[in-house]
This record gives sequence, C-alpha cells and structure tokens, in this order.
Amino acid sequence: MESGQVSSWLQAFGAALARNDIRAAANFFGYDCYWRDLLAFTWTIRTFEGPDEITAMLAATLNSTQPSGWALAGKPTLNDGVTEAWLTFETNVGRGVGHLRLRGGRCWTLLTTLQELKGFEELEGRTRPAGVEQGGIKDRKSWLDRREQEEAELGVTRQPYCVIIGGGQGGIALAARLKRLDVPTLVIEKNERPGDSWRKRYRSLVLHDPVWYDHLPYLPFPDHWPVFSPKDKMGDWLEMYAKVMELNYWHSTLCTGARYDEAAGEWEVSLNYGGDRIKLYPKQLVLATGMSGFPYMPALRGADSFEGRLCHSSQFDAGSNYAGKNCVVLGSNNSAHDIAADLWEQGAGSVTMIQRSSSVVCTSDALMEHAWGKLYSQAALEAGITTEIADLTVASTPFKLLPAQMKPVYETIRRRDAQLYEGLEKAGFLFDFGEDGSGIHSTYLRRGAGYYIDVGASQLIIDGFIKLKSNSTIKGVNPRSVTLDDGTELPADLLVCATGYGSMNEWAAKLISPEVADTVGKCWGLGSGTRYDPGPWVGELRNMWKPTQQPGLWFHGGNLMQSRHYSLYLALQLKARMEDIPTPVYYVDPVHHKR
Amino acid sequence: MESGQVSSWLQAFGAALARNDIRAAANFFGYDCYWRDLLAFTWTIRTFEGPDEITAMLAATLNSTQPSGWALAGKPTLNDGVTEAWLTFETNVGRGVGHLRLRGGRCWTLLTTLQELKGFEELEGRTRPAGVEQGGIKDRKSWLDRREQEEAELGVTRQPYCVIIGGGQGGIALAARLKRLDVPTLVIEKNERPGDSWRKRYRSLVLHDPVWYDHLPYLPFPDHWPVFSPKDKMGDWLEMYAKVMELNYWHSTLCTGARYDEAAGEWEVSLNYGGDRIKLYPKQLVLATGMSGFPYMPALRGADSFEGRLCHSSQFDAGSNYAGKNCVVLGSNNSAHDIAADLWEQGAGSVTMIQRSSSVVCTSDALMEHAWGKLYSQAALEAGITTEIADLTVASTPFKLLPAQMKPVYETIRRRDAQLYEGLEKAGFLFDFGEDGSGIHSTYLRRGAGYYIDVGASQLIIDGFIKLKSNSTIKGVNPRSVTLDDGTELPADLLVCATGYGSMNEWAAKLISPEVADTVGKCWGLGSGTRYDPGPWVGELRNMWKPTQQPGLWFHGGNLMQSRHYSLYLALQLKARMEDIPTPVYYVDPVHHKR
Repeated sequence: MESGQVSSWLQAFGAALARNDIRAAANFFGYDCYWRDLLAFTWTIRTFEGPDEITAMLAATLNSTQPSGWALAGKPTLNDGVTEAWLTFETNVGRGVGHLRLRGGRCWTLLTTLQELKGFEELEGRTRPAGVEQGGIKDRKSWLDRREQEEAELGVTRQPYCVIIGGGQGGIALAARLKRLDVPTLVIEKNERPGDSWRKRYRSLVLHDPVWYDHLPYLPFPDHWPVFSPKDKMGDWLEMYAKVMELNYWHSTLCTGARYDEAAGEWEVSLNYGGDRIKLYPKQLVLATGMSGFPYMPALRGADSFEGRLCHSSQFDAGSNYAGKNCVVLGSNNSAHDIAADLWEQGAGSVTMIQRSSSVVCTSDALMEHAWGKLYSQAALEAGITTEIADLTVASTPFKLLPAQMKPVYETIRRRDAQLYEGLEKAGFLFDFGEDGSGIHSTYLRRGAGYYIDVGASQLIIDGFIKLKSNSTIKGVNPRSVTLDDGTELPADLLVCATGYGSMNEWAAKLISPEVADTVGKCWGLGSGTRYDPGPWVGELRNMWKPTQQPGLWFHGGNLMQSRHYSLYLALQLKARMEDIPTPVYYVDPVHHKR
Repeated sequence: MESGQVSSWLQAFGAALARNDIRAAANFFGYDCYWRDLLAFTWTIRTFEGPDEITAMLAATLNSTQPSGWALAGKPTLNDGVTEAWLTFETNVGRGVGHLRLRGGRCWTLLTTLQELKGFEELEGRTRPAGVEQGGIKDRKSWLDRREQEEAELGVTRQPYCVIIGGGQGGIALAARLKRLDVPTLVIEKNERPGDSWRKRYRSLVLHDPVWYDHLPYLPFPDHWPVFSPKDKMGDWLEMYAKVMELNYWHSTLCTGARYDEAAGEWEVSLNYGGDRIKLYPKQLVLATGMSGFPYMPALRGADSFEGRLCHSSQFDAGSNYAGKNCVVLGSNNSAHDIAADLWEQGAGSVTMIQRSSSVVCTSDALMEHAWGKLYSQAALEAGITTEIADLTVASTPFKLLPAQMKPVYETIRRRDAQLYEGLEKAGFLFDFGEDGSGIHSTYLRRGAGYYIDVGASQLIIDGFIKLKSNSTIKGVNPRSVTLDDGTELPADLLVCATGYGSMNEWAAKLISPEVADTVGKCWGLGSGTRYDPGPWVGELRNMWKPTQQPGLWFHGGNLMQSRHYSLYLALQLKARMEDIPTPVYYVDPVHHKR
C-alpha cells in the first residue's frame, strides 16, 4: 500500500469522524482490530478490541472529542502485508500523535495519544523562556528570589495542586513534567536525598535495563553513560535531575496518612518531617511509592528465634558483610540471583538459593540482541528511532497482541542460549518462558516479577557455586539454620527473603484506608488469566496512570521506560483538571481484585 | 565550484603533502591565504598567513605529521565566489576535522584541527562502557567502591597527572574532557561548591550570552533551558555537571603556591584545606583561574577614609542592600551597567556611573539577530548547525579576517538601533564600535573587556535614572563622597569599582613567581595594535590552551563557548604527553608583553 493510499484511508476515516458517522468510521476497521487510546478520545488509557467496542467508544466520545486534522507523519512502511504509519491529529482541546497498522485496506491496530493541551504547550526551543526580562524593572526579582520564594511558600502558605508520595524515578519524572506544565506540585520522599531509593539497595545492584530504555524526560543521559547504570550513579543522576528541573522536593519526610474530603474535593495529607507534623491539602494525590515498594515478607515459623540476620531483599546491604558465613536466599527472581551472586563473589562460606517455583530466565545479551535492541539501542538510535518513537512504537502494540509478537523472540532466545538452559535444567533450576512462552515482557506486565535477566548468576548455579534447592520452600527457621519442607536443614547466618512486593494499592491501604484500597482495587496486571494475574481480561495495566474509582487518587510507577512515557499522560490529566478543561472519562473499570 | 572540483583540489593537495612536495602544496594556496592549525600539524594553536609562513610550517612539520586520508565531509557550498567545505583527515597519531575556503580554485583559508588520538578515542555510543562486568567475579568492586577508592587515593596516595587550579566553568569543562580521556586530574577550587564562582557574583547577574553559546561538553542544556541563564541556575548546573561527570574536585581548597622542579619535570603545588597543608606533584599544571579572575582595583586617593562600602564589582552583592543610598559605580562596561541597573531597580537613592573612556554598546537582541544568531540559535540548530559545527565554523575564520567580517554586522546593528545610539549620545555616553568598527567580538579577543551587551541599562542612562559622568574619573575619595577630576563632589554610601581584571598571568605571578609570569608573558590579546592590545601581531590569543614558555604550565579560560571548544585541544595535548605520544611543538611565541 502506497503512501497515497494510506493517506486516502486516513482522510476518509477522518471525514467519517468529522461528520459523526460512527458506522462508517467503524467500517474502516477489520474484524480483528484494536484501537488503543491514551487520553485523546477517552481521557483514560484503554484498548478497544473489535468493531463493537470501537463503535461504543466512538458513540460515547466523538461529540466531546471533535477529532480533526488527521495527517500522515513520515512515510508509511510495508512489512508482511501490514502497512504501518505515524500520524498526527487534533482534538478540541489538544494535539495528538497516532500510529496505524493497515491490513488488506482496513485498520488492524490504531493508537491515538494526546501529546499536548492547546494553550498549555510546554515552552521549549523557540518558545523557551528568556531567563531575564530586559529593561529597567523596579523591585525586580531574580531567578533565585523567585525560586526561594516558591520553596518557602509551596506547602506552607500556598497549597500545592498535586502531591506525589514517593520521590524515586517515578515521582521525579512526573514532577518534572508537572513543573514544565506549571502545575504546583510537591514531592514527598522519606529518604534524605533524591536517588536514595536506588542508593539504599544492595551494594552490587546494577540496572538490568539498558541505558537507551532508561532516559528520563527532557534530559537524556550523555552518550558515554554506561549501558547498565550502577545504582549509585543512577542515584546521583536522579539527585541532580531533581535539582536542575527545579522540583519542589521534600526529603526526609514521611507520609503518615491521607484522607479524601469529598465535600471540598481535596485531600488532607499528613506528613512527619523530623517530628514536625504537617498537613497538606492538594486536589490531586499521586502514589508513586514504587511498583517494588511494598515488601512482601512470608510468615516463617520460628523466624523470631533466628540468631543470624533475617531481611527482605529490599533491606539487604552487601555481600562483603557475610564473608565466610552461611547464607540462604529464598526466591529465584532478579534480586535473589543478584544477592546470591554478590554473596558468592564476596566470599560467603556457602550460598543456597531456595527456589519455590519456576522463573523466566533470559540473558541480558539475548534480550539486547532480540528484544530491547530493535527499539532501544545505539543501532536503533542511529536508524532514527528516537526514545520518543521507541516509546510510542511499544505503545502501538495492543497488550492482547504482545504474546504472539514475543513468542518467536523467546523461541529464538531459547535456541541462542540452549547451552545455558541445558545447564540450568541439569542443575535442577525450574525455568519457563512464561505460561504461554511470551517471556519476560509479558511476565512483567502480568505480575511485575517472576524473572531473572541473567548477568552471570545462572552460570554460578550451573557450576554449583550457588547451591540450589528447587521446588522447595522453608518450613521453619531455627536459631542458626533453616529447615526445608523436605526436612533438609541448612546452616544459616543470613536469610534473605527475596520474596517480592505487594500490589501498589497496599500503599493506599496503609496511607489512606483499607476501604479506599479496596474501592480502587489491585494495581498492575492485565487480567491475562495466568498465574498471579487472574482474569477477567482488562487489556491495560489496572489503575496505572489513569482515573481510578477514587476521585483525585492516581498511581504512577514501573520501570524507567514506563516512568518516562506514562508520566506524560498522567501529567496531562492533572494539568487538564487544574485548568478546568473538560475531561470526560469514558469508563473506569470495576474492581475485580481487591489486592 | 562543484563538489567534484573541491574533491579534486583536496585529493591533489593531499597527494602533494603525501609525497612531501612542499612547494607543490604551497602552490594550492592563493597569495592572500591563511592556514589555521589546532594541534594537527603543529601541536600548538597557530595561524599561518601567506604562502611563506605556510611553506615554513610544512617544512618543519610534514615529516612528523604524515597527514593522509583527506576527504570531503558533506557537500561544499558556494557563496560570493567562495567555496566552503568541511573535510576529514588523519595524521600519524590522530584524526582531524578541517574546513576549507577556496577562491578562484585556490585556498583562501584552511583550518586543520586534531579531534582525537588514535588508540585513545573517547568511549561513547556503541563503544560506551558496559557499566558492569557480567559473570561471577570474585571480590568484585562496585562502581561506588571504585569511585570512592579513586576519591580516597587521588592526591593522597597517588599523584594526579594534572592539577587544574580553578573549578569554574573552564576548570570543570576541561576536567570533564580529561576524565573521558582517562587522565588522572584534580580540580582545586577555593569555593565551597562547584558553581559558586557564578553564585557569588551580584544577585541580579544573568548570563549575557545565549544558551546555544553556553553548552558544556557532552551534556547540553535541555531544550527548555532559558535563553539567558540566571547565575544561580548556572551554578546549580555546574555543580550537578561536576558530580555526574565524576570529576575529582577538591572544594574549599586554596592554592597557595606552585614551583616547577625542572629535574623531576613536575610541579610542587601547595594547598590549604581548612588549615591542612597539602602538597601535590603533578606533571601538568593548568591555571583556570578565570579570564575575569584577578580583580583590578585602581589606587584611589583617600580610599581608606571612606565610611561607606567600597568594593570591586566582583565583590558586589545585591542592589537591594542599598535602597535609599547614594551609589557610585566607576566603570562603564558590562558589570558597571548591570550593577547600576540593579541599584536603581532596587530603590537606591541615587546611582551615578563614572565613565572614564569609551565602551562598545550593543543590544542583546541585535547581537542575537545579526551576530550570534547565525551560528548559535534555535534557527541555526534547526538548520543543522550543531554546537560542534558552530564552534568549528567560528574557528575557521582566521583572526586577521575577523574585523572585515564583523564591520558590516556592526554597521547593520548601528542602523538597527539608531535611536538607542542617538539617546546615548545625547546623554553624553561615550561609545564606539571598536577602534576599527569591528565591535564586541574583536574587542573581547583583544582585551577581554570594553563593552556592554545592553539588556536595559542603556535606556536607564538615556532616561537619566542612572546618572552619568562621562569622560571623567575619581580624583579622590572622602568619608561620604567622591571627588571627580572636574571637581564635582558626589555623595556616596557605596562605591563600586567595575574596573576590570588583570591578565591571567597575574595568577602565575601570584601562585608561582613573578619570574615565571614574566617568562610566559601576558595572556590573551592578539597583538592587534589597538588600545590595551599592543603589537606585534601574533594572530592567536596569547598563551591560551597551548604550550607556553614554561614547560608544564597551561592557561585555560574565557567564556563558556571557549571553555567548551578549546578544552578539547588542551585535553588532547595533556593526554598525548601522558601517553608519551610525540608532540613536537612548532613554535612558542617569544614574550612581547610581560603582564
């Protein structure tokens, strides 16, 4: 299909929408079709599957959206009978970017995303601020005067419109976007410095995602930044980022509670800053407390009697503190492997991993070569795939189609690293490629855990340096040992529970109330009907970056890519509300799972 | 002239060089010709004017340089009979980029620059470090372990190869380049934090150069950075830059002296850190103490008797501290205008500027429109002129040709802002466009001062809000007034001497010895034979970024553009010496002016 034909399709489709002819518009889609919308039509994040859902969505949103100006952006490409094209469009309140896949002349997938609000465009490039007003201006305030005044007032004499609980990568990226959009925002962080949520993790931690995947908005890492950021270097970057982005960031401040005042339409947020009790009254409250922010500790019989050190993986310090000691790690995902390897490298007397259930394992190299690399790599960048294009390309694939797209990738990876998998099998390590073979990407979306991106620990298991007890768990803890369910007793000076994290709405339960947590329901997960991700299918990550059943409550989190990409859409939703731009939300999912 | 013809010229020129046929090579140049070399041939920074100088240079350098691989980079352009082209080439030790102007088939100007050393290329993009070594590695060190070890050792148990005195923009940019080149370097800064050299200036200070001119190496400002950076924002940027670039930066440390040990070929540098006396022994010593780092205070009769505040412009704090006071500013260049305007804006009782001699005045807008904007602006960037291309384009114009290039620009500016100049004339303000009408750019290169980039103070002078006594100076200071040379007495609670700075080699005199300062001679200035820049003509900034008469002593400084661009060449010279790469220096100018 040529550029002209795609353009014709788009013009005709746009015309059908313009004359409110929903039937005609739906007819531009094939039977097997998906329309993913990020705010532009629905003011939520939702994928519509099949002509009926699309028809219903258009019937409800077309009047308020008034889409127009559909135009191709760049040249369409044709691959295996599928034509792909980027496009731009407008709504009555904003400008959007979209992506289209046509098959046999009809739409297979459509992505529509809101990118900016008319009249509230971010100032950059030619429209950047001058930095100084020329001329003689009586009682002129300097940048520092204004910055100091803002810091002195916000949250003290002037209420922030938005409060973000959690000043890690998610909170920082979102706050940067809100700053650019002029939304008065306070970030509340319990640690002393921005970046501490990385710094305080175990000493050997290095990001498992590559640098091209990890950029924050507005200020990419320089070209010499390492492929995999060491956690302290990442911490320093976040700290300087928060500073140069002029975020209003309250460190060393604990959020002790939050309560929504329905009548006033605002939150009462309670804080503790070194014993000082402070209350804030924002209209919007964002929980950015981390996808991996609420440690899950199993109840272990006899744990109180343990005379060694017992900790959750999030509290583990450094392998070098356990030279010569007997160490047991419960769990077999990323942190479990990292910590076990660190312990072995730093001379632990023995390291045993207790594997309770199967994990997805893929080498970092294989993922770079066959998964990330196509969109997030130096080669991709040199081919013109900027971070923004990569993010939108990822967004253009409906979650329903992801498994089919990923299965062949993981089949290739399985062949590529056959020797590794053979070794793991021999060592008794339980691994899979996800229930449907769709690998780490799906597993992450379904449950936010369940995999190890191998950077060396698998070989240590194969070689027996890290001992393995698989298909096993801890039955009881004794003063200087643990007893497994098969009766084995392992000497233990250290027991690390790398047992994962609770859903983000556990934080809502803790900070707001169990009732509100249950009202909004579980965060994350697609409803795929696989292990830890029960149905029904919802087709998007539950409650993330979009309106929830609780007015004024938002969830933000995930890896750096998600923190970067979705912070835009969350920021636009908050800005629109602040400016009283109508934001008719098409639909908020009912709650299927409370935690 | 078509691309093919330029290419032929370049091939034939390259062939003549390759067969060591200097006469033939010189014949490729016209009678009126310039070859500017940044290290590639001469291991210094020098412009050769006319065929004879070029012939002599080639005779001395061709054998050691062995240039090869001359190739066009991009398409040549033709304007007014001059063909311009970018080119690449190699030498026996490195790779270079050049720029060529042909007129009538012969070379008018040639620029050759060394860009990297073979075998010591900076790692970036595809060659960036992994950030982590995969596999099981006994006693693995984390990034933080290594960084802490480096900080603990360098300057304590391990000598830096290079010490940079002064941690402002110059020292920081250079240290960043040296870090990337793996040259162990310590930056010594007297202030508490990187960026303080900006922060500690007067409160209203905003950079007068636009953002596109001001980027540091490797990490450009984000797209929303203001056109003109407020000084405290710039300070924060420098602080975070030093951190994320992992510079070894000793703050709050005063350099009290330095002595070159000829026999050992190293420096003994004495430091004072909170009373602790420390000595360092680097091979190379860089003075990056600031082009505007050595305040010049005039001897004013009766100054001791003054009961108000008397300070140099570098010590001035903020206009708001002088509300209702009588203020006198001696001087009529950038700082004098800024400070006078700040005082008026913040409600001083009276502000009088004492103008001793004529200044160049241009509005910031006019400079953006007619001077900077062609190379350093959003429009230039959108036209494909990156910062690197802009810097090299500037470098491609021999200083001898600059006045002829700039005169028409300043004639345009004079017409553009005729009303302003008329107003200044009526107010009695003495202004010019440089002795030869070549404006601010030439004036800056000749004497590093002598101009005001107008952002509003000129109108305050025209309107009489800032009072002016021009063609005048202070004869004496009294307890509460100053007496001018015409006998006028002005009441004064504040007297600011915006009287400029000494040459950078004043720092050599202070820190090393007057003898060494006299051995290397004055820094800056071209020998143009204009006021404050006596001849003979040397055609490059004296002693800047290149070998001096004192082995192991280097000067680095200037505005942000110079700090960015020339730090590359200074870093390559230091790296080559550290790696024992031969660096035969063609010529070091004799000293014509001691200070």
